[in-house]
Amino acid sequence: MAKEDGIGVDGSIGDLGEFGLISAMADRMTPGPGTIVGIGDDAAVLAAPDGRVVATTDFLLEGRHFRRDWADPGDIGHRAAVRSLADIAAMGAVPTALLVAFAAPPDLPSAWALGVAEGVAAEAARAGASVAGGDVAQFGSVLLAVTGLGDLGGRDPVRRSAARPGDVVAVAGPLGRSAAGLALLESGAAEPAGLIASHMRPSPPYDAGPAAAALGATAMIDVSDGLLADLGHIADASGVLIDVRSAALETGPLEAAAAMARRGGHDGAPADAGTADAAAGVALRWALTGGEDHSLVAAFPPGLGLPAPWAPIGQVHEGHGVVVDGRPYRGAAGWDHFRPGPAD
Amino acid sequence: MAKEDGIGVDGSIGDLGEFGLISAMADRMTPGPGTIVGIGDDAAVLAAPDGRVVATTDFLLEGRHFRRDWADPGDIGHRAAVRSLADIAAMGAVPTALLVAFAAPPDLPSAWALGVAEGVAAEAARAGASVAGGDVAQFGSVLLAVTGLGDLGGRDPVRRSAARPGDVVAVAGPLGRSAAGLALLESGAAEPAGLIASHMRPSPPYDAGPAAAALGATAMIDVSDGLLADLGHIADASGVLIDVRSAALETGPLEAAAAMARRGGHDGAPADAGTADAAAGVALRWALTGGEDHSLVAAFPPGLGLPAPWAPIGQVHEGHGVVVDGRPYRGAAGWDHFRPGPAD
Repeated sequence: MAKEDGIGVDGSIGDLGEFGLISAMADRMTPGPGTIVGIGDDAAVLAAPDGRVVATTDFLLEGRHFRRDWADPGDIGHRAAVRSLADIAAMGAVPTALLVAFAAPPDLPSAWALGVAEGVAAEAARAGASVAGGDVAQFGSVLLAVTGLGDLGGRDPVRRSAARPGDVVAVAGPLGRSAAGLALLESGAAEPAGLIASHMRPSPPYDAGPAAAALGATAMIDVSDGLLADLGHIADASGVLIDVRSAALETGPLEAAAAMARRGGHDGAPADAGTADAAAGVALRWALTGGEDHSLVAAFPPGLGLPAPWAPIGQVHEGHGVVVDGRPYRGAAGWDHFRPGPAD
Repeated sequence: MAKEDGIGVDGSIGDLGEFGLISAMADRMTPGPGTIVGIGDDAAVLAAPDGRVVATTDFLLEGRHFRRDWADPGDIGHRAAVRSLADIAAMGAVPTALLVAFAAPPDLPSAWALGVAEGVAAEAARAGASVAGGDVAQFGSVLLAVTGLGDLGGRDPVRRSAARPGDVVAVAGPLGRSAAGLALLESGAAEPAGLIASHMRPSPPYDAGPAAAALGATAMIDVSDGLLADLGHIADASGVLIDVRSAALETGPLEAAAAMARRGGHDGAPADAGTADAAAGVALRWALTGGEDHSLVAAFPPGLGLPAPWAPIGQVHEGHGVVVDGRPYRGAAGWDHFRPGPAD
């Protein structure tokens, strides 16, 4: 691991220079036990004990996925890591390593860039992984592209395509909390802090992914675009109908948030969201269509007695598509990254 | 592999939509034999027969690494792939798969985006690899972040840190041709087309990487920042002095290019570069400091009788740093990505 010589961290990354920046970032990223060659060579070398490797890559882009005036650098690093780590867990794999490509303007304060590195490293550690390499480049805005790698431990990968009629649909982790936190931020609210933190630092239960694979999950995905949109991917790939039971979704704290966001003027809420019924409707919409919680949702064969944190929320039937309480849901079902809507 | 339904490729990627774009890109990327789960799930699953995986990630950013008015989309895809594939080869590994994160404005023509996909896929195929996954996002300029994965086939990774006094330094692939091509482009010249193609589509000899590992190379790197800069990384990591023999560098075609670029008004060339001696000086500078050829340079124990394409260009001694013909070289030795200079 390279050293910093105790200089440069007070200035900009342009002062630090490319190799100084890499060195200072590397100092904030402890190699994991599976790292055979880490930061500082042409490429990393990582243990892949299973003989297969699970791999995914995701952007987190300034102005599209985050704003520097809303989020502290630790939050941004954390969220960049979550996106890839949750994808690994959603295959039923244990995350092992991240590669972090980071671009920024040369006048970016070094402390800010190192805050991002600390956020990435902390979330990787929470998932049992470590940062093993990456890239730095100069660009007009802050760009992150995080690659996640994982190990299946001898299990079959859990794809989107094998849900079967009769399966139980269950979720591990919250739904709608990130959307609620975003609405509160947009309305200027600073409370409830827990919901805002859910947007800034979603906290998926990574262990639930490999656990679901071991239990025999037939299909799994992480909720990045919204529950209905992501269940739609499973329904399409599996050729099934999925029915979500709205009463099974925990929306209590979201109702309070909906009422609060409405009072703060959030324009995503309907005009009457200040009433309890309308708040419940907004809360349900967040739970069904809010993205970026990165919770895991999976289909399981019936009769398994699912352990926590898995909670049943619906059922797989013959047919096509996704319904709520047996009927099509009349709200937005997530978004397309190239059409108007929230960030991808 | 998803289908296109024959629509949308004439319009913009905004018309095609996120999933249409992914589907159309995937149609241009044939899965390889090591792809267990490819494009279309939360993450890819790839064979890692060695029980270890080599992994690297690199940006290619519009305005920083390429200009849309200079390069066709195939060239850009190709160059994005080269950066990661050469890093894998430089560890002594065989490239197996790429993950491609692609961001672009919604009004980008679909045909342009698909040209990038075709360029990435073609270069991956040249290296024996395939595209197994990625990400798409909306952004104001075109961004690529390509992750490369590779397999060591039971060999030790070749790092930067084990060159020893007495070793022979050898190169596989051209030096300075990318810099010459860039200078020609900047001067407005369209010939020699082969040198311009060397900038637009560098063509590293990937097989030479695993071959060097099998021969017993003690250190290896790909020439991305310039020969002296990259040998400097080996010298630093290994604690040795490297002496490059300038007469061993093939600079013939570069001399003609230097003279031509000078006539075209390229301001990087000295005022008298139109003369044969000055052109030779510029050609040597390109060979020593020009980046982005992505050729491989390695140190080998003496007396091996190196096979083609490996060509000896210097010697490892006790000491520190890099010299040319026994003396410090008085030109720029590459660049720092956060300081003024050519693109990183």
